[in-house]
Amino acid sequence: MDRRSFLRTSALGGSAAAASTLAAPVYAQGRRTLTLVTTWSRGLAGVHDSAQYCADKITAATDGQLTVDLKAAGELVGAFEVFDAVASGQADMYHGVDYYFTGQHPAYQFFASLPFGMTAMELNNWYYHDGGMELHHELGTIFNMKPFLAGNTGAQSGGWFNKRIESPQDFQGLRFRMPGQGGEVLSKLGASVQNLPGGEVYQALSSGAIDGTEWIGPWADEKAGFQEITKIYYPAGFHEPGPGLTLATNLEVFESLTPAQQTIIQEVSTASNLWTLSLFLANNASALQRLQASGVQLAEFPEPVWDAFGQAANEVYQQYMGDDLYKRTYDSYMTSLQNSASWIDRSEGTYTTQRDRVIGR
Amino acid sequence: MDRRSFLRTSALGGSAAAASTLAAPVYAQGRRTLTLVTTWSRGLAGVHDSAQYCADKITAATDGQLTVDLKAAGELVGAFEVFDAVASGQADMYHGVDYYFTGQHPAYQFFASLPFGMTAMELNNWYYHDGGMELHHELGTIFNMKPFLAGNTGAQSGGWFNKRIESPQDFQGLRFRMPGQGGEVLSKLGASVQNLPGGEVYQALSSGAIDGTEWIGPWADEKAGFQEITKIYYPAGFHEPGPGLTLATNLEVFESLTPAQQTIIQEVSTASNLWTLSLFLANNASALQRLQASGVQLAEFPEPVWDAFGQAANEVYQQYMGDDLYKRTYDSYMTSLQNSASWIDRSEGTYTTQRDRVIGR
Repeated sequence: MDRRSFLRTSALGGSAAAASTLAAPVYAQGRRTLTLVTTWSRGLAGVHDSAQYCADKITAATDGQLTVDLKAAGELVGAFEVFDAVASGQADMYHGVDYYFTGQHPAYQFFASLPFGMTAMELNNWYYHDGGMELHHELGTIFNMKPFLAGNTGAQSGGWFNKRIESPQDFQGLRFRMPGQGGEVLSKLGASVQNLPGGEVYQALSSGAIDGTEWIGPWADEKAGFQEITKIYYPAGFHEPGPGLTLATNLEVFESLTPAQQTIIQEVSTASNLWTLSLFLANNASALQRLQASGVQLAEFPEPVWDAFGQAANEVYQQYMGDDLYKRTYDSYMTSLQNSASWIDRSEGTYTTQRDRVIGR
Repeated sequence: MDRRSFLRTSALGGSAAAASTLAAPVYAQGRRTLTLVTTWSRGLAGVHDSAQYCADKITAATDGQLTVDLKAAGELVGAFEVFDAVASGQADMYHGVDYYFTGQHPAYQFFASLPFGMTAMELNNWYYHDGGMELHHELGTIFNMKPFLAGNTGAQSGGWFNKRIESPQDFQGLRFRMPGQGGEVLSKLGASVQNLPGGEVYQALSSGAIDGTEWIGPWADEKAGFQEITKIYYPAGFHEPGPGLTLATNLEVFESLTPAQQTIIQEVSTASNLWTLSLFLANNASALQRLQASGVQLAEFPEPVWDAFGQAANEVYQQYMGDDLYKRTYDSYMTSLQNSASWIDRSEGTYTTQRDRVIGR
């Protein structure tokens, strides 16, 4: 018996046994357990919570007909192995961030976050109303999966450094943790970039294996404990202005579900998208105050550094244009961004500028 | 037979008959129809779509066990009568914007939008993670309802005027449509404020019964056709920086549902919240371009006008502090706003400023 068959049989057998001992009503005969693997270690604030939210709400909304069993990073497969596990059917679903999978296809970058790309709401506008979801599904089909956005961290912090960044040259030789195209941008500036799952970053920074790291934002970073190791923190960054998190289901599994169950997976994913984004945004300000009180110094990248980020980002975008799906996704994304940004600047931007001026916030 | 009993019996009878002719399986015996009344006329872009999204997704996610039957404004009760209809049990649910109901309780303002208050995401942060939802439920309980946020329009436009606003004095005697506390602010500036449901605004503006109106934003306003009547448009406004839309269920009806069905109503509401907000934001920029191409002139309020809005808004807030629930809701809301705004400015604000500078958007 191969591993996939073993896992499938085990999961179905377990739920069937449970159903029979409970003398469940007729419709409960369709109960099944779905194994959800994640790129997150338990305890990673916000991102693990988002995966657990999806698991709990799908289970509750189906009255347990679909019981989602969350296996955090390392419990069934490693953080970066979740993609292949779901593509092959070893697991039923993954919750993670899709730029971990740009090695499988470069277009996965767009459904997480593009350096100098969309904010969280710009991403949602594109995803739900400007063709983004359809492109995500087209991409997923290549790998036998049905993905939906199911979370967002909001604009991520520039990260933790062991020295201040005064010019683009300061990235030369810096050993820094940053995944996806953001990491490729830093590579172009001369950094030695590493991609580590969240659960392994503290140890790498603590041991001196890396000089610095970005993770998410003040709240998640504080929980991860990076302030115990270094005190120089950049609250704003270029690399992940609003990364989406994804809940992807093996396509054969998804197509075996009832239309109602498919609807529930989609609706819970969308609800989790908003619930997760607001979770981060609600907690970041107070976490930043605590970090400052504990001695963390806040810094901002100088404009020439932002300029260097921007130039390198554009070079990175272009490297993948030979792939038709990447190119179509890029064009769709950039057209939508142009629309969204112009309106949000004009309306909410004008409003918040005036509000903060008038009432002194 | 009173009207409530008639409607209940009629709805249940209809669904039971349908189930029997279809030889439905055993669990379908629990099928019921829920009547959803809305404050929106059919065809009001975005807001009616949001109500229809809720109806369709609840029906689909329950496989029709709950079949939500949408009755738009005027089809069962008038736009402003939906609150009393659901409180009394005449209808099962309403979809609307809660500042229409500040006459029932002034605290309803917070779950729509406060003048000079929260943007859409600030509202969501408060609602899902800083105590907002719990206060909404406490308020709903007074009126026998279980409300959930289920949409947002994003920052609303300042509106349509028959003359340019050069100073606060220009509001003296102006007959203007604006609901809730926003309208109270304009009253303090001397305007003659009217509250009309969306479906009645075009006629009032067209006939000259009012001199101007705000509605939502470029996309919804264009669909409503105001550009056919006046050409002076203020894209940014003070009055509704991110109004939430609500799906509220009669409390006895809600408590009679299964936990799974209750979860589905909550998750679909949250999903609709994000789906609706992104619907407006995705469509506003192109609509604004079309409006400009058709001869609409864009204007911005001068800073002294914003100052006058701000001063009057603070006076309006204070008028209701004698009510304990209003006061507690105000304190909770303002504390959360202070937190949210400081982080969003620092992270996403810094990012978008640099992005738009570097890549020339």
